[in-house]
Amino acid sequence: MGDMIRDPSPAPSRAAARRNLLFLGTFVHSKTRERLEYLHDAAVCVDSEGTIVAVEEGCDRGKAEAELIPRLGWTTGEVDVHVGKDGQFFFPGFIDTHVHASQYPNVGIFGKSTLLDWLNTYTFPLEASLKDLDKARRVYTACVRRTLAHGTTTSAYYATIDVAATNLLADICLALGQRAFVGRVCMDREGFCPEFYIDGSTEESLRKTRETVEYVRAIDPGFELVAPVLTPRFAPACTAEVMKGLAELQRELDVLVQTHVSENEGEIELVSELFPESSSYAGVYDDVGLLGEKTVLAHAVHLSEEEARLIAERGAKVSHCPCSNSSITSGAARVRWLWEKGIEVGLGTDMSGGYSPSILEAARQAALVSRHVAMGHEGESKEKAKLTVEEVLFLGTRGGARVVGLGDRVGAFEVGMQWDAQLIGLSAMDPEGLSLDDGNVDIFGWENWEERVAKWVFNGDDRNTKMVWVKGRLVHSRR
Amino acid sequence: MGDMIRDPSPAPSRAAARRNLLFLGTFVHSKTRERLEYLHDAAVCVDSEGTIVAVEEGCDRGKAEAELIPRLGWTTGEVDVHVGKDGQFFFPGFIDTHVHASQYPNVGIFGKSTLLDWLNTYTFPLEASLKDLDKARRVYTACVRRTLAHGTTTSAYYATIDVAATNLLADICLALGQRAFVGRVCMDREGFCPEFYIDGSTEESLRKTRETVEYVRAIDPGFELVAPVLTPRFAPACTAEVMKGLAELQRELDVLVQTHVSENEGEIELVSELFPESSSYAGVYDDVGLLGEKTVLAHAVHLSEEEARLIAERGAKVSHCPCSNSSITSGAARVRWLWEKGIEVGLGTDMSGGYSPSILEAARQAALVSRHVAMGHEGESKEKAKLTVEEVLFLGTRGGARVVGLGDRVGAFEVGMQWDAQLIGLSAMDPEGLSLDDGNVDIFGWENWEERVAKWVFNGDDRNTKMVWVKGRLVHSRR
Repeated sequence: MGDMIRDPSPAPSRAAARRNLLFLGTFVHSKTRERLEYLHDAAVCVDSEGTIVAVEEGCDRGKAEAELIPRLGWTTGEVDVHVGKDGQFFFPGFIDTHVHASQYPNVGIFGKSTLLDWLNTYTFPLEASLKDLDKARRVYTACVRRTLAHGTTTSAYYATIDVAATNLLADICLALGQRAFVGRVCMDREGFCPEFYIDGSTEESLRKTRETVEYVRAIDPGFELVAPVLTPRFAPACTAEVMKGLAELQRELDVLVQTHVSENEGEIELVSELFPESSSYAGVYDDVGLLGEKTVLAHAVHLSEEEARLIAERGAKVSHCPCSNSSITSGAARVRWLWEKGIEVGLGTDMSGGYSPSILEAARQAALVSRHVAMGHEGESKEKAKLTVEEVLFLGTRGGARVVGLGDRVGAFEVGMQWDAQLIGLSAMDPEGLSLDDGNVDIFGWENWEERVAKWVFNGDDRNTKMVWVKGRLVHSRR
Repeated sequence: MGDMIRDPSPAPSRAAARRNLLFLGTFVHSKTRERLEYLHDAAVCVDSEGTIVAVEEGCDRGKAEAELIPRLGWTTGEVDVHVGKDGQFFFPGFIDTHVHASQYPNVGIFGKSTLLDWLNTYTFPLEASLKDLDKARRVYTACVRRTLAHGTTTSAYYATIDVAATNLLADICLALGQRAFVGRVCMDREGFCPEFYIDGSTEESLRKTRETVEYVRAIDPGFELVAPVLTPRFAPACTAEVMKGLAELQRELDVLVQTHVSENEGEIELVSELFPESSSYAGVYDDVGLLGEKTVLAHAVHLSEEEARLIAERGAKVSHCPCSNSSITSGAARVRWLWEKGIEVGLGTDMSGGYSPSILEAARQAALVSRHVAMGHEGESKEKAKLTVEEVLFLGTRGGARVVGLGDRVGAFEVGMQWDAQLIGLSAMDPEGLSLDDGNVDIFGWENWEERVAKWVFNGDDRNTKMVWVKGRLVHSRR
């Protein structure tokens, strides 16, 4: 059995007696959108609830034990110590702001399709089949384990329309320790949704959604690790009534909302036909009351200036899904332009429109797609469109955290935030040119830290993610 | 030490007494540009020289030993048998038609640069430093081992201007068993080339090139595994005189030529300034006599209709480098358009303009970039621009073989061709959703073969390349 499937602490965090933690080594995280901060010879203390209580630079083990631990009122004996090896660094866990767990088995399978035929050919049949709970368990377990192995500590999941399977996904996230938003997909529009995969009525759609919300509340009362997310699939699959009902539910419960916007030209045309009274695709969501600060809009490829202004005004967020947008030929979303409009942006794998479970791959593709955006510009705006290594890592961590409303809790190493983190190791080489470790990144030894991080962004993979923690709990490790 | 660095048969193929080989299992290769052929329960026999002497479908071990082996005049005792396990398949080795071995340490490091500043900032200083042969040995060893681990059985390498380091690269390819074209880089134009990295004169440039050709002839007299390739870096770095001299040398020796064309708009402008009498960038090479059937032109992003016609007429080939073209914002090359002009196309990693050592990654990016090309089109031509999984795998194998003039020797499984192959294994999963193997591709069990291959193209990596052979010799294996 491969290393990725080890589950070193199988009990949920709530159940186990937990200890204080001390991490020592190099820590890298986004200080701002433009800048990574490198904390060398640093110490980070995490309490038994998974909260960061100290971040100290220039603090080795001796100093930590002599000064830091006592200052926190801890004794050395009640602290577990994790030391990053030479060349390794701690990095915030990745945030996947848009992912269909139910489509995981289809990653890489999309042929030459675009959105609407892709849904009918590949997606709806698979999603519908997950009402078989044995199949759902297998698919969701694989998805959660695989994304944890890639360092994803928070996911905003679409499940399916099935209540029991959606609840099962919440159970699995809680058991395996991944922070997650779990959404039952609402789709009640006859004519668009296939007969084999549609909510029976608007009322049923709302009732079933409420059932999944209550289930998540029962298993994680404070939504500390797993939370519900209202999930109208997208305007073409939903009646105005169901969207209005979900908007009411949102105001009642104050939970996250997720949907798709302006992904593909055919889809945009369809929306304008189905909602002739709305001024735009984004306007449809605004008209039903769904466009707010807790709304995550996936894709946003072809937004008009007016739509971007509306989204910014409402404080809604965007999940950028570069792998998906390229794979199914949706278009090249303009991240710099969204930022300039004042819109917060994170990254989504969008499996299985996107082929990869990895937010690191999404970050890489965000950099590449930004260069395709740049190719369409001249002069200064050409240069500006390009995203740096620092910016795409911001998107995958701090940006994503803000998109899902967790900006003050995860995405960086600051006192008061939670320890959602990964330990990254790159392959050192010996003088003969032989790699001393597995993985696809070769470090010759002369690279500075910025270059090492760039090498990781472009050639790194799950082999470089040595350990992953969520809320202080070790949820994945490999040799 | 990682598995990738094992070298199971360290002696060069010429030196060892070699045995006949029988491979059993599923074989997948490009039959045409549009179609992969799947040979199930098949047997392939390879003689002691590495040549495929039989390909039989519906032939298990019993039948192979009872009928096939005797028919070849072999006895069972003198045949080594390799059986692909359930779900594994043999695939032709990849051909990298454009790669700067000397730039390998810089993969992933390019910032926001474009071609000309990238050369000065990142590339020339590194290349110049490889006149230190200890450093060159380390870099070239790492590059050859790493690309072998990714299934690259043939590489068209650019080394540096240094003769000794270039010869060392040839030695390393021969020792590690990778089929390679090794080129000493010619660059003699003052004003463009930096003072610390330039051939002393046109005469010196030609003389040193001849020295490396003769060295390769000495170590591999028939150019059976390693061959020289004439390598004028690109028009801006070369005088017309050196290119004319290389054209004469090409006619004398009948060897491959490689260079760059039409990669970046600034570069194209510079070429038109430096060569005002030529009608185009491709025209420069034609005017000096370098544009022929044995010429490999890398990039070809911004070719005019006229240039494409000229290249097709001369029978020159194109190396498509999608990772590089996206990374340093060169543009999106139009593979379908090149094919329609009648030009043969292969794939190049173009390290380190490209970030990845993997031709599988180049194939993936070729698919994605073709969709960015499609985004610029409407209607039928939009659909047409997209490349299929089958087409990008053709580019990486059979197409690449034709580009480097080995179309009748490698790139497919046909009698008379050489056994340059890789064994691909994908991760099967157990009923609990646990992966039973390392690697990033999850096979649930219900996927058909086309879907498995698509999953490999989009999420596969070197972990799926279990064994690699060149000319019948096992040159890489992992557990």
